[in-house]
Amino acid sequence: MSVSMEKFERLDRKLMYEGTIISMYRDRVKASNGNISDYDFVGHKGACAVIPITDEGKIVLVKQWRNALDRFTYEIPAGGLNGKDEPMMVGAARELEEETGYKSEKLEFLLSLRTTVAFCNERIDVFVARELKKTEQKLDEDEDIEVYEFELSKLLDMIKEGTLQDSKTVSAILAYQSFYR
Amino acid sequence: MSVSMEKFERLDRKLMYEGTIISMYRDRVKASNGNISDYDFVGHKGACAVIPITDEGKIVLVKQWRNALDRFTYEIPAGGLNGKDEPMMVGAARELEEETGYKSEKLEFLLSLRTTVAFCNERIDVFVARELKKTEQKLDEDEDIEVYEFELSKLLDMIKEGTLQDSKTVSAILAYQSFYR
Repeated sequence: MSVSMEKFERLDRKLMYEGTIISMYRDRVKASNGNISDYDFVGHKGACAVIPITDEGKIVLVKQWRNALDRFTYEIPAGGLNGKDEPMMVGAARELEEETGYKSEKLEFLLSLRTTVAFCNERIDVFVARELKKTEQKLDEDEDIEVYEFELSKLLDMIKEGTLQDSKTVSAILAYQSFYR
Repeated sequence: MSVSMEKFERLDRKLMYEGTIISMYRDRVKASNGNISDYDFVGHKGACAVIPITDEGKIVLVKQWRNALDRFTYEIPAGGLNGKDEPMMVGAARELEEETGYKSEKLEFLLSLRTTVAFCNERIDVFVARELKKTEQKLDEDEDIEVYEFELSKLLDMIKEGTLQDSKTVSAILAYQSFYR
């Protein structure tokens, strides 16, 4: 909106560590006041997620162990794209079936998220899936995922109480409530 | 809920790179099926955020350049804690005044987020701030932040259109709409 603001200029980007799903860089950035300093940058290849709605209006979440939090979480089904060229909606339908054993041909775009903009470019597109058909889970060898159905009102309580915190899951549930109900 | 699921066991955590605001680790993790593999872990010291509501019911957002996205963003005011012991609500009140030039003594807990649970422990607690009193911005030397007020309906449109994507901001706006209106 404003034309007065100046972009910061990136002078350099150097790979410091290559992880299994992310890469850690040190960026040298010139701020709009001319100061030069180092910024952390985590490169991520993008992910997709889906909020599955049963014919009874319940929401399907997956429970899994999260090493980064040292605990189990409830989340909407999600995962990385199969290569750079997989369309987000195709990836969302694939992750839905792999993680929950539900197939859907009725996916609609809900919203697009940037999970943590201070240091990472991760983008997650979220879709609503309806008309779910039961098939079978197709988990990766090390995945251990259980599938649960929740009433929307229960999930809203869990967000208020702070027992449901995952940002893509919180955003998806609240956006579904706001835009679909 | 289920007692059948097993935790994954972390066998080792090794610091691979120390950044300016995050630290990158390589974890060795034993999955519930016994397989051992490496996981990325990004350590973050925690952050706080605040959704400021004017007396007219408008929402105050800040515009700033984000190196990780190569673009400007609109976000709720937010920032890291001042040391490990700063209470989240104190940090939120401080960031509110520093970034927007508004002071509030009426902060309420809204929700707690984990931004990206697949690889990072970042936690952001979000508060609603009302009864805003005009003071002055107190920006860090390199910060360049402009302050805008939006109608809630406009922000909901921006989320739908995908022009507002920051997960803490999306979650805060939708939670405010859901729990306060």
